[in-house]
Amino acid sequence: MHEFEIIQQYFSGHGPQRDDVVMGIGDDAAILSVPPGMQLAASVDSLVAGVHFPEHMPPAAVGHRSLAVNLSDLAAMGAQPAWALLALTLPQADDAWLLEFSRGFFALARRCQVALVGGNLALGPLNITIAVHGLVPGGQALLRSGARPGDHIYVSGWLGDAARGLQELPAVPGAAAGDSGIARFCYPEPRLQAGMALRGIASAAIDVSDGLAADLDHILQASGTGARLQVDALPLSPWLLEHCGREQAVNLALTGGDDYELCFTVPAARLPQLNARLQALGAAVTRVGEITAGGGLQCVRADGTPWPLAATGYQHF
Amino acid sequence: MHEFEIIQQYFSGHGPQRDDVVMGIGDDAAILSVPPGMQLAASVDSLVAGVHFPEHMPPAAVGHRSLAVNLSDLAAMGAQPAWALLALTLPQADDAWLLEFSRGFFALARRCQVALVGGNLALGPLNITIAVHGLVPGGQALLRSGARPGDHIYVSGWLGDAARGLQELPAVPGAAAGDSGIARFCYPEPRLQAGMALRGIASAAIDVSDGLAADLDHILQASGTGARLQVDALPLSPWLLEHCGREQAVNLALTGGDDYELCFTVPAARLPQLNARLQALGAAVTRVGEITAGGGLQCVRADGTPWPLAATGYQHF
Repeated sequence: MHEFEIIQQYFSGHGPQRDDVVMGIGDDAAILSVPPGMQLAASVDSLVAGVHFPEHMPPAAVGHRSLAVNLSDLAAMGAQPAWALLALTLPQADDAWLLEFSRGFFALARRCQVALVGGNLALGPLNITIAVHGLVPGGQALLRSGARPGDHIYVSGWLGDAARGLQELPAVPGAAAGDSGIARFCYPEPRLQAGMALRGIASAAIDVSDGLAADLDHILQASGTGARLQVDALPLSPWLLEHCGREQAVNLALTGGDDYELCFTVPAARLPQLNARLQALGAAVTRVGEITAGGGLQCVRADGTPWPLAATGYQHF
Repeated sequence: MHEFEIIQQYFSGHGPQRDDVVMGIGDDAAILSVPPGMQLAASVDSLVAGVHFPEHMPPAAVGHRSLAVNLSDLAAMGAQPAWALLALTLPQADDAWLLEFSRGFFALARRCQVALVGGNLALGPLNITIAVHGLVPGGQALLRSGARPGDHIYVSGWLGDAARGLQELPAVPGAAAGDSGIARFCYPEPRLQAGMALRGIASAAIDVSDGLAADLDHILQASGTGARLQVDALPLSPWLLEHCGREQAVNLALTGGDDYELCFTVPAARLPQLNARLQALGAAVTRVGEITAGGGLQCVRADGTPWPLAATGYQHF
């Protein structure tokens, strides 16, 4: 199957139509309109087979997850998603794989109103690289650098499920169903509504991709602060507690990664606003600690004793 | 070496500073300002080791070429380059490779005023995927679809050199020097000045990545026209003619690919404007044929006899 036939059959015209796409797939570059007063948020992420996901993960999940981890970066900036570029490197043109991959990709793209406006198809080891673009009102992007001592630290959703789900992913290809960590590894939900609702409220935000400890530490580094994290307050799902017990669940939440929840900080003065917008957040949020003036990241139990942190997140190299 | 150390050492703060970068490397996404009245041009391209370039190509050339082939897409739209996202998948963190790669990348980035505003580092088979972003005044992008019967067809630079250069690339790693096809394969020059100078003059444009026949055919398909191409008018370099003779040189120009020159069409009424701007084009241009109402792509010699077209460009799958 020829490159242009693959694009035509699986990728052209499948996503939502957007008025701000002047020229989408089919020229040397996409031409896009950014509305006045809006800034562009842009990010890129790669998923490599055998590194970021197991080779036997269902292709629909690969399609969903590739886009979701990118949209999660936009969520962490408070940006509204708009456009994506997809660079797909494939060992061969496999119709069944492409069909399922594109279904998973476009189901999420349609739901989040992301238009696929361009891309690249190449032959080689399986690598899915996506660049996403979102829009955010000028000056309102959520940065990592705004946390201040006394700010409350929150996370959305549940932590640790995806890391455990990856361990339990069935070796036989098949759809990962149900409300389990397996489903949350395969089909992470980018917290876009929460990110947008936090504009003007959160002082800092990041998405949890490498484990809460490592990602919160990025906020601390960028903000020049420390933090006290209450490990007994971490939101752990019934599924996770059932599968591995509290001790291991806390470790997975802190260092497991792949959750794609948001971690954000809120000044005490804005807590009423946060509570007023909780309905709009699109995800439950849990207070897990507070920003301190220094002292790095301290993890403590409810009784104040320190929690020994095993490792600080996924090491890419 | 840790991911963040690699970014810090080889990629942060190396490019040009741009006022329109609100937040560059170091947050979940870059935040960028698009000036009023400008549209965004966005494109992505992947280079896979062993597929798009030989494993033994010097890493500085890999860095240059990865960015150049992307900028070439912006040139074909008439866009001015602004920002890039770099997704780099590497088999290991190799200091010498990273140093040379980043030198090649940033030498071109600085020259073209492209700021690296974000990226992704992953472990896996070598794959360099870059998303580039440019700016073009609203409505002035050069599309593939505007060619009309009677328009003259032009190409910039020389064709065929890069395809022959790839064949002659020394198997021993080392800098490809001199005014040769080897240098043009390793260090293609994106025709950005030409692209911008052609706004309001060219009726259609594309960059020549898969061979002139295949790429011109994209213009014909998008415009609903045919073309008559004068193969004896094709710009062939002294180096190419010396290395393989005219017959083979014409074949490489038509079907070899990797030239990253521009192919564009100009209505007869705008030829005076084209000539007036030739100085600003930044590249010699050669008239190689004309657009016809139909009949597909006909390649003819100076005496009017047809030139048999062997294949229509690089097949990616």
